[in-house]
Amino acid sequence: MKAIVCVTLKPDVLDPQGRAIQRACATLGHAAVTDVRQGKLFEIQIDASDRAAAERLVRELCEKLLANSVIEDWKIERIET
Amino acid sequence: MKAIVCVTLKPDVLDPQGRAIQRACATLGHAAVTDVRQGKLFEIQIDASDRAAAERLVRELCEKLLANSVIEDWKIERIET
Repeated sequence: MKAIVCVTLKPDVLDPQGRAIQRACATLGHAAVTDVRQGKLFEIQIDASDRAAAERLVRELCEKLLANSVIEDWKIERIET
Repeated sequence: MKAIVCVTLKPDVLDPQGRAIQRACATLGHAAVTDVRQGKLFEIQIDASDRAAAERLVRELCEKLLANSVIEDWKIERIET
């Protein structure tokens, strides 16, 4: 199974990288881009018997390893079988 | 409108960061994690009149700014109104 996980900075946390991209958009003439925030994406291949087991494992990984819960939010985008 | 864009390394391109995460999972006792690949996620706020205009703009940004087409693939995950 393949799980897609998104890790993003919490809304209150400053994102200078995203801000730089937004400015680059403005410089390229795309003033319509009002805000950009950059996050991380993980594609995780899991050898699991069922969807529930895969989801349990991915949750544990997110909490322990993939996201820093002080400044980041995480979300399991989807699990593909 | 808010567009969610995923940028991932092409399948042929080595991903040492993802490999390190996969090994960390194994060290933590999660041998079920057979592969991890890390990509980038962009949340883009766009001031557009309609969905089609927003999508056109996001496509242009992906091609020009957000992804390196030599080594990366990009995908508009969704556009939220």
